[in-house]
Amino acid sequence: MPATTFIPDPHQMYLARQALQGQVVRTPLIRSESLSRRFGCEAWLKLETLQPTGAFKLRGATFAMSKLTREQRQHGVVTCSTGNHGRAIAYAGNKLGINTIICMSRLVPANKVTAIRELGAEARIIGDSQDEAEVEALRLVAEQGMSYLPPFDHPDIIAGQGTIGLEILEDLPDVDTIFAGLSGGGLLGGIGIAVKSINPAIELIGVSMDKGAAMVESLQQGRPVQVTEYASFADSLGGGIGLSNQYSFHAVRQVMSQSYLVSESAIARAMVHFARQEKMLVEGAAVAGVAAMEQHRLDMRGKKVVFVISGHNVALETFDQARCLAAIPS
Amino acid sequence: MPATTFIPDPHQMYLARQALQGQVVRTPLIRSESLSRRFGCEAWLKLETLQPTGAFKLRGATFAMSKLTREQRQHGVVTCSTGNHGRAIAYAGNKLGINTIICMSRLVPANKVTAIRELGAEARIIGDSQDEAEVEALRLVAEQGMSYLPPFDHPDIIAGQGTIGLEILEDLPDVDTIFAGLSGGGLLGGIGIAVKSINPAIELIGVSMDKGAAMVESLQQGRPVQVTEYASFADSLGGGIGLSNQYSFHAVRQVMSQSYLVSESAIARAMVHFARQEKMLVEGAAVAGVAAMEQHRLDMRGKKVVFVISGHNVALETFDQARCLAAIPS
Repeated sequence: MPATTFIPDPHQMYLARQALQGQVVRTPLIRSESLSRRFGCEAWLKLETLQPTGAFKLRGATFAMSKLTREQRQHGVVTCSTGNHGRAIAYAGNKLGINTIICMSRLVPANKVTAIRELGAEARIIGDSQDEAEVEALRLVAEQGMSYLPPFDHPDIIAGQGTIGLEILEDLPDVDTIFAGLSGGGLLGGIGIAVKSINPAIELIGVSMDKGAAMVESLQQGRPVQVTEYASFADSLGGGIGLSNQYSFHAVRQVMSQSYLVSESAIARAMVHFARQEKMLVEGAAVAGVAAMEQHRLDMRGKKVVFVISGHNVALETFDQARCLAAIPS
Repeated sequence: MPATTFIPDPHQMYLARQALQGQVVRTPLIRSESLSRRFGCEAWLKLETLQPTGAFKLRGATFAMSKLTREQRQHGVVTCSTGNHGRAIAYAGNKLGINTIICMSRLVPANKVTAIRELGAEARIIGDSQDEAEVEALRLVAEQGMSYLPPFDHPDIIAGQGTIGLEILEDLPDVDTIFAGLSGGGLLGGIGIAVKSINPAIELIGVSMDKGAAMVESLQQGRPVQVTEYASFADSLGGGIGLSNQYSFHAVRQVMSQSYLVSESAIARAMVHFARQEKMLVEGAAVAGVAAMEQHRLDMRGKKVVFVISGHNVALETFDQARCLAAIPS
């Protein structure tokens, strides 16, 4: 048996699983009758939307924060993400009694600032760009000894997300294929390390939007590269992977079987399908796998397929836009 | 200790719980941050929407069918409901290998007929009214020895729905108050028998739409009465309780602490709130409790409150109508 070189190693996922008990929701895996019929497979949905913050990010954030030393906890945690990771840090800090500061620029919409504050975190508004917010975060690390927790490129964050893979195996041990949104690689890398260590035959498919897919581009170049960002219904999948990426790039390279890019209109149609059939409003990122099945006419007949429904933090108005786009014949 | 007179008795709920294992989803109870903040209580959602048929009715139907004798199973099951109960009978029949016929009138919309057929049941179209469909169902019982399973007034149906109460107690033993939609009384009666037998202090609140609330009217009159039916966003709560009601009327009379009626606009606003905050499209019946909290300004501060989110079989177009109504200032 070859030595594994996973960082984090699968053992960390089990430690994470124990640490997360009672702290995050052990989400259900439910069968989708409509997708099963549509694709001729046994389709299952891993509902990370049911986490209290509405997205899987709570797992990694909670595990990473639970591993901080007593002294680190006293100095608090800082991050810059104003999306699902920032929300997760704020929530976990509140629950674990750790002071958290989310640094953000003046341009961040008021509803996001409010959401962060309602979770008990300090929303620190700094400058006119996310770069300036990051400078402030790094200042807090240097001057006040706060811990900086990045959104994906950290062994504990990846291990936390990997607990999703362990739960999938518990509920559906003979799963054939898992679809996950592909962005910084924390979700796909974590799940992949967890499930591949137990059954290397499981196929892991990553899906990104077709404009600004940083991980896919980086994999093609063989090293982390920067890409231009575009607006997308799968906004959670946007952003770079970091030019000095240490963990998630290698994890994804080792565990991902295949990746697909999907168009905005495929994402929009998948969002509308999900609302009509599953009665759930979800982020574009959450249905990227369904969009890939449709757009690339993938053949999964007879297989047991899990779609990781990663998050539901989408405004009703964004869903309305998806409905408009989906109504335009392609 | 006074002798209980519950039919079914609480012991049946435990038998039902065992029979339903692996047959229906053991649904999660998740905390709603948004409702907790809004009402100053600890608000929890029992997500029956995650049943494969999208509604709690699968519990009662599956338990009742599992209790049929071998001979009864061979003769099959018939019902008239074209809603969540009919769908549940069709699904359970498919799963348990029991032949099912759903009798319906020509007026039933094509999408409902298709949905029933996709679940493997025979959709038998008879005459121009639900009454004629019922005549056909009774003919099948008399002439072909099929078993008729009604939507609520049956001990096994009530016991099946009661398993929701047992699960709530397992997940939140110190629950104070449970809100459930009130229609024929199978849901509220079953939950009430289950939880009151364990903790009589639990407050059980039933909510109906303010036009055509058959159970509320019957309780006021002291006997089952007929009411006029009206269109409602809470269409699952419509219909009579049966003039010769044997079980559910008495069950509700014994276990319900209080009932409230809610307006269409309160239901619509609750549906929109649910979509915006919980990202779920649900039936009006599912959010009747939330609507009652708002419309009647109920004070639940400091309490642990469960809302039974009973089903999500609502068309996107119906949700659009709710959004329009909710946008009109009241």
